[in-house]
Amino acid sequence: MDDRLVALRRDLHRRPEPAWREFYTTARIVAELDSLGIEDLQLHVGPDALAGDHRLGVPEEAELAPWYERAREYDVDDEVLDALAGGYTGSVAVLDRGEGPTVGLRVDIDALPREEADDPEHVPAAEGFRSEHEGTMHACGHDAHATIGVGVLRRIAESDFEGTLKVFFQPAEEVVGGGKPMAESEHVADVDYLLALHVGLDHPTGEVVAGIGGFLAVSHLRATFHGESAHAGGRPEEGRNAIQALATAVQNCYAIPRHSDGATRINVGVVEGGVAPNIVAEEATLVAEVRGETTDLMEYMDERVRRTLRTAAEMHDCEVEIETGAEAPSATSDAELAGIVADVAGEVDGIETVLDRDDLGGSEDATYLMRAVQENGGRACYVGVGTDHPGGHHTATFDVDEATIGHGVAVLSGAIERIAAERP
Amino acid sequence: MDDRLVALRRDLHRRPEPAWREFYTTARIVAELDSLGIEDLQLHVGPDALAGDHRLGVPEEAELAPWYERAREYDVDDEVLDALAGGYTGSVAVLDRGEGPTVGLRVDIDALPREEADDPEHVPAAEGFRSEHEGTMHACGHDAHATIGVGVLRRIAESDFEGTLKVFFQPAEEVVGGGKPMAESEHVADVDYLLALHVGLDHPTGEVVAGIGGFLAVSHLRATFHGESAHAGGRPEEGRNAIQALATAVQNCYAIPRHSDGATRINVGVVEGGVAPNIVAEEATLVAEVRGETTDLMEYMDERVRRTLRTAAEMHDCEVEIETGAEAPSATSDAELAGIVADVAGEVDGIETVLDRDDLGGSEDATYLMRAVQENGGRACYVGVGTDHPGGHHTATFDVDEATIGHGVAVLSGAIERIAAERP
Amino acid sequence: MDDRLVALRRDLHRRPEPAWREFYTTARIVAELDSLGIEDLQLHVGPDALAGDHRLGVPEEAELAPWYERAREYDVDDEVLDALAGGYTGSVAVLDRGEGPTVGLRVDIDALPREEADDPEHVPAAEGFRSEHEGTMHACGHDAHATIGVGVLRRIAESDFEGTLKVFFQPAEEVVGGGKPMAESEHVADVDYLLALHVGLDHPTGEVVAGIGGFLAVSHLRATFHGESAHAGGRPEEGRNAIQALATAVQNCYAIPRHSDGATRINVGVVEGGVAPNIVAEEATLVAEVRGETTDLMEYMDERVRRTLRTAAEMHDCEVEIETGAEAPSATSDAELAGIVADVAGEVDGIETVLDRDDLGGSEDATYLMRAVQENGGRACYVGVGTDHPGGHHTATFDVDEATIGHGVAVLSGAIERIAAERP
Amino acid sequence: MDDRLVALRRDLHRRPEPAWREFYTTARIVAELDSLGIEDLQLHVGPDALAGDHRLGVPEEAELAPWYERAREYDVDDEVLDALAGGYTGSVAVLDRGEGPTVGLRVDIDALPREEADDPEHVPAAEGFRSEHEGTMHACGHDAHATIGVGVLRRIAESDFEGTLKVFFQPAEEVVGGGKPMAESEHVADVDYLLALHVGLDHPTGEVVAGIGGFLAVSHLRATFHGESAHAGGRPEEGRNAIQALATAVQNCYAIPRHSDGATRINVGVVEGGVAPNIVAEEATLVAEVRGETTDLMEYMDERVRRTLRTAAEMHDCEVEIETGAEAPSATSDAELAGIVADVAGEVDGIETVLDRDDLGGSEDATYLMRAVQENGGRACYVGVGTDHPGGHHTATFDVDEATIGHGVAVLSGAIERIAAERP
Repeated sequence: MDDRLVALRRDLHRRPEPAWREFYTTARIVAELDSLGIEDLQLHVGPDALAGDHRLGVPEEAELAPWYERAREYDVDDEVLDALAGGYTGSVAVLDRGEGPTVGLRVDIDALPREEADDPEHVPAAEGFRSEHEGTMHACGHDAHATIGVGVLRRIAESDFEGTLKVFFQPAEEVVGGGKPMAESEHVADVDYLLALHVGLDHPTGEVVAGIGGFLAVSHLRATFHGESAHAGGRPEEGRNAIQALATAVQNCYAIPRHSDGATRINVGVVEGGVAPNIVAEEATLVAEVRGETTDLMEYMDERVRRTLRTAAEMHDCEVEIETGAEAPSATSDAELAGIVADVAGEVDGIETVLDRDDLGGSEDATYLMRAVQENGGRACYVGVGTDHPGGHHTATFDVDEATIGHGVAVLSGAIERIAAERP
Repeated sequence: MDDRLVALRRDLHRRPEPAWREFYTTARIVAELDSLGIEDLQLHVGPDALAGDHRLGVPEEAELAPWYERAREYDVDDEVLDALAGGYTGSVAVLDRGEGPTVGLRVDIDALPREEADDPEHVPAAEGFRSEHEGTMHACGHDAHATIGVGVLRRIAESDFEGTLKVFFQPAEEVVGGGKPMAESEHVADVDYLLALHVGLDHPTGEVVAGIGGFLAVSHLRATFHGESAHAGGRPEEGRNAIQALATAVQNCYAIPRHSDGATRINVGVVEGGVAPNIVAEEATLVAEVRGETTDLMEYMDERVRRTLRTAAEMHDCEVEIETGAEAPSATSDAELAGIVADVAGEVDGIETVLDRDDLGGSEDATYLMRAVQENGGRACYVGVGTDHPGGHHTATFDVDEATIGHGVAVLSGAIERIAAERP
Repeated sequence: MDDRLVALRRDLHRRPEPAWREFYTTARIVAELDSLGIEDLQLHVGPDALAGDHRLGVPEEAELAPWYERAREYDVDDEVLDALAGGYTGSVAVLDRGEGPTVGLRVDIDALPREEADDPEHVPAAEGFRSEHEGTMHACGHDAHATIGVGVLRRIAESDFEGTLKVFFQPAEEVVGGGKPMAESEHVADVDYLLALHVGLDHPTGEVVAGIGGFLAVSHLRATFHGESAHAGGRPEEGRNAIQALATAVQNCYAIPRHSDGATRINVGVVEGGVAPNIVAEEATLVAEVRGETTDLMEYMDERVRRTLRTAAEMHDCEVEIETGAEAPSATSDAELAGIVADVAGEVDGIETVLDRDDLGGSEDATYLMRAVQENGGRACYVGVGTDHPGGHHTATFDVDEATIGHGVAVLSGAIERIAAERP
Repeated sequence: MDDRLVALRRDLHRRPEPAWREFYTTARIVAELDSLGIEDLQLHVGPDALAGDHRLGVPEEAELAPWYERAREYDVDDEVLDALAGGYTGSVAVLDRGEGPTVGLRVDIDALPREEADDPEHVPAAEGFRSEHEGTMHACGHDAHATIGVGVLRRIAESDFEGTLKVFFQPAEEVVGGGKPMAESEHVADVDYLLALHVGLDHPTGEVVAGIGGFLAVSHLRATFHGESAHAGGRPEEGRNAIQALATAVQNCYAIPRHSDGATRINVGVVEGGVAPNIVAEEATLVAEVRGETTDLMEYMDERVRRTLRTAAEMHDCEVEIETGAEAPSATSDAELAGIVADVAGEVDGIETVLDRDDLGGSEDATYLMRAVQENGGRACYVGVGTDHPGGHHTATFDVDEATIGHGVAVLSGAIERIAAERP
């Protein structure tokens, strides 16, 4: 079994696709599930898998097209690809095994827009499964997440599990864009227990965190400064310099005061502007995110960033247009559910340390699904599965210790069986 | 004749090409010259036209390729295109008419990387010759310059001119990249008198500036900040933020003190960096230029910019790599030559005002050719031919009053004949 | 009793003195204690009260002098003033009542360098005890702290307490300067139990926090940028502008990345530089502080601030000289001791709510004394006594509800008696 | 004669007084003039010397008082001091010698708020006439100007001059504050020819510039940012940080784009704000000046500075209050008058080089008087008298070669006699 899962993970790693462009990824997961020969497995893809109107941060058709066309060139099922057209990526797999609770497992599947390391110490480079899509990389372990989702589904299908299992292969986590439309879909409405997972997070192989909390609320925005171009040598005073506005904004966004109520974050992750050294730039764009330990703290940062952008524009006689991007709330893991995970994990081969809880200190749109289930009276738990990762998350040398795949499958399928048995 | 020149100008305008990518432009000029049927015209293209090793700012092959391929698709002479491969654009046309001085005329031919206006008040849009190359535009009038070069050559070919005329169709003026290799070529070595021209410069149709001076010395650079990426929510402190370094650098570059010895300029014209809002940017790039009324003043700015870049990088724990770009010196027009131009211009139909001199207040790599000729004991003069232009140079609504083409041809060919006759 | 304490508090409020200049304040406290007629009370003042070499942030003699001279003009004991000369302010009062534990109570006595509100809604203004020392104000409640210290001493002197009580009237808390020399004095060495207190902290009258923790470690610094002056109109390029260096430093200090390990703080609280608008500034100074939830986090900030200062200076061709100021570590309240305080507080008239613990989120050099006692095997607890305060701490409208004085005396003297009785 | 003038200059140097505080200086000049025993000399001091309502930048009484009191302690005429009370410094001396033109000579008399060098290479330090007023210095040579004014008056009094000579001993040039009220006084209304002078300006001893032009128009302002204080550790988010607003403003003021029409200047010469490192600053002030080669250019800078101040305040949720300070226009020297000066200077012993003209590149409120005379149909000329000065103007090591005093007296009195004789 493990060989097959490792092969799947490496194949996904080799062909990473960023948010809403997981065309090959989705089709490959569906093909893998089909190949398992589980007769009663129902698969939802495309507009059936999520509430399309709630998708956030879907790129324009022109950006989707090359990814879609490339996926066509790979060896995948054309009908599945047809269903994904227009950025309807992701899938929901349902296994209805009669009376019993409905348990959901959410795994995310998208990659990041960054270059992958190419030196011999980086295992994917050394062993030939480094990204073939230059500038895109599975630098956060979602290739392992998707693989664990498949593994859990197979294990449960072969078990005595009574109830319904739904595995949510969620797209677009990295842009905080896929959690909301999945949470709003009909598939989540009847879930009694939801599990989600993440590998790594600075926990080594052999360590499990039963219930992760401390999710930071997050919000993205894109600001475009509009000024006026001028010849930089001949008429500098006639320019309204969008790059100066941007630089002032960046400096002052990072300088927003810390807050005594808890953690806040600010990052201007992308800047772009201007056309030539001898032209005063008439347009410049930045993409930023703010986070907070609570939604209030996130909104404190958001409001300050917007004021900074507006006044920086005005200072340099520019206008600024702000597009609101994706958002995700904060959430917590239910202690009872975490207790079950901890118990199960303690019995899994290779797991040496089980921590009851830890704070993520980051953001995740799994919180949309967790909150949806909790608001319906259900319970949710976010599980950390340790893995030795050489570089940090989101860096060029991030990698997953593949032993983690087996650990994840064992802990999560064990927990699902125990939940069905105990209905806590 | 004028209809034909206007058609040429509009065709060049419709298919603008930026520096070192003037493949269609060069081939089109050569075709036009060929069609004139001047039997004793010698045409130099490709490596024969300029000193290839001195070319500055030539883009990488990957950037040249799409332009080259597109030119292939147009109706041009394949042999000419073959010669231009690798960014050897531009051409030198030589007309040897026996004993007499060697007179050079330098015209530049490249376009700018900017969007062209698309509203009905913009003549090229209204009359159907707006740029077909989205994002590139003849926003400085070089389409008219090239056309005037062709017109002058025809007029002189038909005249009693005795001596040698060389018309330099120079590429890559906008990146200050083509002047130096043309100045270093063998074609300039024996030039006794050099004329160059520019249309517009805030002078209206009917006005001529006989001798322009006050060229600002200029230098370009590209700085790339290298930091380290990190998850912006989970480990902000582990990032070494290249975008913060860039923003600090931009702000402080513009704040370099003014100089009491004369005019200085600074512009950060392009910025780009980062990959996603949730990743601390590990790389960010800016492209900037500095200018000075003298070379010393330009170097004052250049030195300060470099210190600012270096310390801004260090402040944010980044490294910075600085690539020196193109440079051009300052220069002056010789008064005797300007006197001849002024005399001739005063007799041209449609020219109502002739100014002896004016300052450019900008930069131009024609100065390389002017200096080369002057250092050899020759004389040089840079002529302004007024044109009503709705928008400023380098802006989206720049356009040329086509009456200017006739004025330019008349003034310059008149001056060339007079020079040959008088040998001042 | 309360009338007398209120009168004392108002008198201290009317004559606030900043760090190391508490000449009148100390003498007035000593006079009040003397007037109580407690025969076995020992009073230590001047060099006897603290380890003089460890004093931090003592101003120069020229700054001390006017405060010292003014104190002379008030009606106080000249001998006490003699002992305080040179900034040896503060006092330790010792009551030895035989066998039993040594219990310390630390109260701070200094005021802040800020203007006090002068409108009728501000009680001290309305009732005639607003600061007579313009520009200095008891804006943090240390007038109440000192008063409570006196009140506790009197109450214990009249009780059956067995053991030794030491009340530390500590100077210079606001500059984090007096805690260390008191902690290093011989008086702390034999303390078994230490209590400290603060009024307010956003807790209303009637609320007590038994054990406050979450003290931020703090460090102060002063940076002086040295450049070179020049005539701003005639030779701007010859200046090396210390004000530009300072502005760059300020912007970038606030922009130091947040840290995922916990709370950090940065504040540039004072700037000063330059002499005239037409002179490029040759000198500019800033005073800043950094804080961290742990000492490591404080040091992270400190290191970044120093790099920012150094590179900002270099960017503008200046030098920077950094003087390290005061520091204080973090600390925690012992739970057993907090338990006693909570029990006692629950029985005090007027106390309606008792919280077990809360985080300060600020800094305090009481932590030096707390750590000293804890490292000797003793226990320490920092108690919050709520008070309705109209404006925030350190603002012009801060004031204390005087009912708090009675609450503070009751809770702390009750706790001291209980400690002596129970020896937890 | 020269010994006496040198003694006067050194005495003025030893007791420098800044703008509007030239109490001793004025009284000392008056005493020197009295001692010359010129019977028909009329002296105007106090409100008689200038149009008091037009005075700019007069400090508050509290700042004037210590200077006024100190002047009282020196050996000067009490009646003169009485007339100067309230900052009515400066004097006008009139010598009416019958029929003939009215010739004015304007000299300025104030010092700068800066420390003077104290090393043996600095002549005033070595020879015992270094400033006794610590923090104030004659760093621009006005001590020599005033002395030359006295010398010229004596020389003309002893000559055959026919006409009226008025010497304007103008206060407050350094704050651009005294030129306007002198220009608006009745004394200027009938002046036919005005001379003004400056020593040094990078011209060595023995060089004279007959007619200086290129005065930059100048305008001063003071901006006070009002925010809200908060405890920097406990409630950083509640602060509205005036120092952050100031830093953003400073950075962006220096970054105002250069102008293609000519020279501009910006300087933030003074900053001050905040009270303590642990308090978010609620108030911060800057003093700045802008200049332009023309009044339009100065106004371009002024408008941009104001927008920058306003938006920087808003960015940090502060308010800003802007007080407009002094202003001075640009002006030019009349060529005929400069011609006379040049002729005379060429005959003066010790003058080796005479330049027709030069640009100041700085500002001067002599331009108010020059314009007033020119607008009345008179003529004006600003004369440069070279002096070897070790340090630049406004720096700690500036000093005057005392040979310059004789040169100045000879050139200017010679020119005044020639003007009266020739009436150009």
